[in-house]
Amino acid sequence: MTPTFHDIQEAHKRIHSHIHNTPVLTCSSMNQMTDCSIFFKCENFQKAGAFKSRGACNVVFSLTDKEAKRGVVTHSSGNHAGALARAAQIRGINAYIVMPSTAPEVKVAAVKEYGGQITFCKPTLQAREKTAEQVITKTGASLVHPYNDVCIIEGQGTAALELIQDVKNLDFLFAPVGGGGLLSGTAITTRALIPNCHVIGCEPKNADDAYRSKQAGHIIPSENPQTIADGLLTSLGDKTFPIIQDLVDDIILVTEEEILRAMRTVWERMKIIIEPSAAVPLAAVFSNQLNLKGKRVGIIFSGGNVDLSQFFASLKKYD
Amino acid sequence: MTPTFHDIQEAHKRIHSHIHNTPVLTCSSMNQMTDCSIFFKCENFQKAGAFKSRGACNVVFSLTDKEAKRGVVTHSSGNHAGALARAAQIRGINAYIVMPSTAPEVKVAAVKEYGGQITFCKPTLQAREKTAEQVITKTGASLVHPYNDVCIIEGQGTAALELIQDVKNLDFLFAPVGGGGLLSGTAITTRALIPNCHVIGCEPKNADDAYRSKQAGHIIPSENPQTIADGLLTSLGDKTFPIIQDLVDDIILVTEEEILRAMRTVWERMKIIIEPSAAVPLAAVFSNQLNLKGKRVGIIFSGGNVDLSQFFASLKKYD
Repeated sequence: MTPTFHDIQEAHKRIHSHIHNTPVLTCSSMNQMTDCSIFFKCENFQKAGAFKSRGACNVVFSLTDKEAKRGVVTHSSGNHAGALARAAQIRGINAYIVMPSTAPEVKVAAVKEYGGQITFCKPTLQAREKTAEQVITKTGASLVHPYNDVCIIEGQGTAALELIQDVKNLDFLFAPVGGGGLLSGTAITTRALIPNCHVIGCEPKNADDAYRSKQAGHIIPSENPQTIADGLLTSLGDKTFPIIQDLVDDIILVTEEEILRAMRTVWERMKIIIEPSAAVPLAAVFSNQLNLKGKRVGIIFSGGNVDLSQFFASLKKYD
Repeated sequence: MTPTFHDIQEAHKRIHSHIHNTPVLTCSSMNQMTDCSIFFKCENFQKAGAFKSRGACNVVFSLTDKEAKRGVVTHSSGNHAGALARAAQIRGINAYIVMPSTAPEVKVAAVKEYGGQITFCKPTLQAREKTAEQVITKTGASLVHPYNDVCIIEGQGTAALELIQDVKNLDFLFAPVGGGGLLSGTAITTRALIPNCHVIGCEPKNADDAYRSKQAGHIIPSENPQTIADGLLTSLGDKTFPIIQDLVDDIILVTEEEILRAMRTVWERMKIIIEPSAAVPLAAVFSNQLNLKGKRVGIIFSGGNVDLSQFFASLKKYD
């Protein structure tokens, strides 16, 4: 079943007291550089540092009391893990998070801070799925997929809803695409509210499964993709692909260098921290593949979780 | 002559259309960590990336037309240089910036972007002063000292004015101290508007001239200070010292480690970029040298200009 815009409106009512209505920022030097008017929806300021809190809250607060009592489970080393642990903590239920033993310390700490119960496993998809299965057998917890889930898509579609409430007459809306939860939710919302607005998915060239899948008309997963945009390594699922195929106008690819340049420009000009995955849509705007002159362009800054350990270690100069 | 609060109000009228009234942010996890209510005045979002734009604009827009025509000059490798170049550009006059040949590329680029005319010299104070003298002889430009100048102090005092307009009943106001322009302006404003609010200067232990000067009752300059807080290397001047001596309640010292920890906490929790000097007041709050339990605390985040070259070079992983 495909989510409707009405489902996304209901999701927003369900979650709005548990998430931030994040600010929409503008930046005059960005507008000068690109010759258009850009409106940045800052999900880097979202609870748990990413839009993932929207979908996670929508799933957790959609569970019946009986389901909720048994908890939720996921396997993830990314933003979804922290967001799900937080949502479960708010509802007062258990979150079982299966993480690869190689997960960055900062991600492990985030899950622990929100009271998530971590089970470590070998860093293979097989080990992760098997470990999650074991948790489910033992606890009866509900598995929450990070993107290929109708309830998750509905939650992620609320970011565009808030953006479009704040900013009128957008001509384009750019969002990153990994597994497609954010992009498909964004497309449903945008088509319903501003039918003529172009919805653009933005993807690293090094993880271009959404681009290739859309061209081919069927899902072609990425094999061992390597990109700095670590939130976009996943491939489309059978729930997200059809929505993207139907409602998204175009997918634009950007190089690793373009991603880093966009991210650095944001840090230096806007003085805000976005993660590499969040820089992908701005990189697409900078890449001039579409003529945006004079247009009103929305961009979803999807998250702001960056591992700063090395950077801060390098700053230690004096005792 | 010491500036009055009235002078600061006049300065605000003079400059407000050329600067940002920067936002005041709060952060629930910061409040939890410190057990007080903190209000961050975000001068890292100020034009040219630091509060220095306030003083620079006040000087440039206080010049007579005759003075202005001859331009302004300073020797600086820091935020003052960029801010002065920008202010001069807005008024349409020349800014001559004397910079040491060792100045970071990012600072040189900022001055150039604002149309500043750079003269490089050897990286000694003597060479800088001599080169500035030569520029003055040749052009008749007005020398604009980065802090030991009444007009600069008035401009810097407008940050606290905006903060106190936005946030009522502050019990404490924390600001960093280098040469003392920001701290002295902050103290004048705060004493006038909320006489019972404690004004606290915050300084790196490795550049503790303000602390020692205040203790001794006369200026004791730092000798070759070494701190990550590169905006606070300068020592108090004869215009700033008496104000700080009279109106500032206390100066708190923090270690390099405390500065880095505070800066990292801001980047990770608030997802905004502040420079090391701007982290010094939060480091002072974290250090628990004052009992702030339940208090309303203002902090001036003085700037957000950080050299990110190395960090972004380290992120290049894939082609």
